[in-house]
Amino acid sequence: MEELSRYQQLIENMLERHRFEGKPANLYDPLNYLMGLGGKRLRPMLTLIACDMMHGDIGKAVMPAIGLEVFHNFTLMHDDIMDEAPLRRGSETVHMKWNMPTAILSGDLMLVKAYEWMMMSEGLTRIKILETFNKTATEVCEGQQFDMDFESRDDVTVPEYLKMIELKTAVLLGCALKVGALVAEADESDADLLYDFGISTGIGFQLMDDILDVFGDASKVGKQDAGDILADKKTFLLLEAYARADESQKRELNRWIGHKAHDPKTKIDAVKAVYKVLNIEEIARQKANEYFMKAEHLLDAVKVESSRKQKLRNYAEYLKNRIS
Amino acid sequence: MEELSRYQQLIENMLERHRFEGKPANLYDPLNYLMGLGGKRLRPMLTLIACDMMHGDIGKAVMPAIGLEVFHNFTLMHDDIMDEAPLRRGSETVHMKWNMPTAILSGDLMLVKAYEWMMMSEGLTRIKILETFNKTATEVCEGQQFDMDFESRDDVTVPEYLKMIELKTAVLLGCALKVGALVAEADESDADLLYDFGISTGIGFQLMDDILDVFGDASKVGKQDAGDILADKKTFLLLEAYARADESQKRELNRWIGHKAHDPKTKIDAVKAVYKVLNIEEIARQKANEYFMKAEHLLDAVKVESSRKQKLRNYAEYLKNRIS
Repeated sequence: MEELSRYQQLIENMLERHRFEGKPANLYDPLNYLMGLGGKRLRPMLTLIACDMMHGDIGKAVMPAIGLEVFHNFTLMHDDIMDEAPLRRGSETVHMKWNMPTAILSGDLMLVKAYEWMMMSEGLTRIKILETFNKTATEVCEGQQFDMDFESRDDVTVPEYLKMIELKTAVLLGCALKVGALVAEADESDADLLYDFGISTGIGFQLMDDILDVFGDASKVGKQDAGDILADKKTFLLLEAYARADESQKRELNRWIGHKAHDPKTKIDAVKAVYKVLNIEEIARQKANEYFMKAEHLLDAVKVESSRKQKLRNYAEYLKNRIS
Repeated sequence: MEELSRYQQLIENMLERHRFEGKPANLYDPLNYLMGLGGKRLRPMLTLIACDMMHGDIGKAVMPAIGLEVFHNFTLMHDDIMDEAPLRRGSETVHMKWNMPTAILSGDLMLVKAYEWMMMSEGLTRIKILETFNKTATEVCEGQQFDMDFESRDDVTVPEYLKMIELKTAVLLGCALKVGALVAEADESDADLLYDFGISTGIGFQLMDDILDVFGDASKVGKQDAGDILADKKTFLLLEAYARADESQKRELNRWIGHKAHDPKTKIDAVKAVYKVLNIEEIARQKANEYFMKAEHLLDAVKVESSRKQKLRNYAEYLKNRIS
């Protein structure tokens, strides 16, 4: 893990040295504010790890790696407007601290700046990176719209949900790994295996997130206990429960879901009781494990000595332990 | 002008053949809707004209030309949210027809798609185009934020206003011409002259716009008569009037500006009366002409036979006549 914290340091130093500069302040300050709220820097970490694994020079990978972090923060800035979120990482969101128009425009600038960073490599690699990034950016937008569409639909299926989280969050992890492999000029097939590893792992993480929101230790997860149930969020758990429920269980779920007026604890307990009878936690854990196992096999297939893959395995394990 | 309408046709055909396709519909429909509302296609026209002027192949220029039109429409989609505009080209704006989150997200996707189009050229040209585009996109965001900042400031100067309109609207015209020259592999110095031509012309157009809003024939301009005065917009006219007004004229302006409660016609007449005494229309027309003359000299300096420049001159003249 020592080398991983060296990567983390490299990323933080780079971000510190390259704060956004320009005028007017109302446009640029929100970018530095949001980037300064921290976070795991998961995406750039994946880029550096993949690049190093494939015998690449991480000094060349760090610029597009930063681009992916900037892109991720752009999505946060705009998603927070769409979700009317008051807080991000425990601090005021940009549209609350400034205002909505500024959050839209600063987000737009952030997307442009992400492209500037993504362009900082050479020759054919640069083009391949940009093509991968364009595809991913498109899919992330699609995922967010599917997510918003789901809110007003009552016929969302589990496969649709899995596709949505793949687009909304997993493809960017895949992209981060692939970009690292591209900088290292790895074989296309290995770059694609790492991309697929990122997707499987990302979906697995999101399923763990869904599980822990309801069944985790709230103080450890750092979120409101069962916030997803209170918000009637159509997570894997709820959709799977609907799919497996008999008529009386469906009626019970429908009594609670979609109604905000209930006492929170009563609502949470009632929905969890249905989940328990249907064994939903176990089913969801199995599903997450399927994705993690698939990811392992994909990583095994990458044509590089197994020892070089250890850092990525360690990092994925570290992330899994953080959320579980 | 016959060749110009051939270009127009080429652009429209290209847009028709390459409608945005993807899922979910709520994400992609707004893109096709907004692009389908028409417009002069000014920016792609400039790209094709510049490319042809510099002996380039317009077949290669049409992709980035479309990219600039897509980018322009992205700015419209987001600006309309920020300005709370109900109408765009006489039809409902996207955030009114769909909703605000969709207008944010579809706009984001549109910016990504603009990059995809901008990338469709070869080798070094592609990189130069992307670099120019990144710079321009950044400046357009800066211009929009300056414009928003100006609304709540009462010390905006004329030079600040000119800089704002340069960033918000003129640089994109400069970029469109430069991109055409880059596709034609013109000398860097000629590409930059065309860029500067676009900026001067663009500022001139905006000044004409300011003049015609107040002094033009409303039925011809197709906008509300003196809408800028009613909205207390800090245009060149108002800022120049403030700069030249004596104490009593300043008091008179301050009586009217910033107060929405007045009878519209009385307010317009009162402000126009101050403009008349201060000779503001003539001063503004002179200023616009300065920019148009500067543009002419820049175009003269481009190293290509004068006859090849005629199309751009004609087009600029045609646009001037449309608004004056």
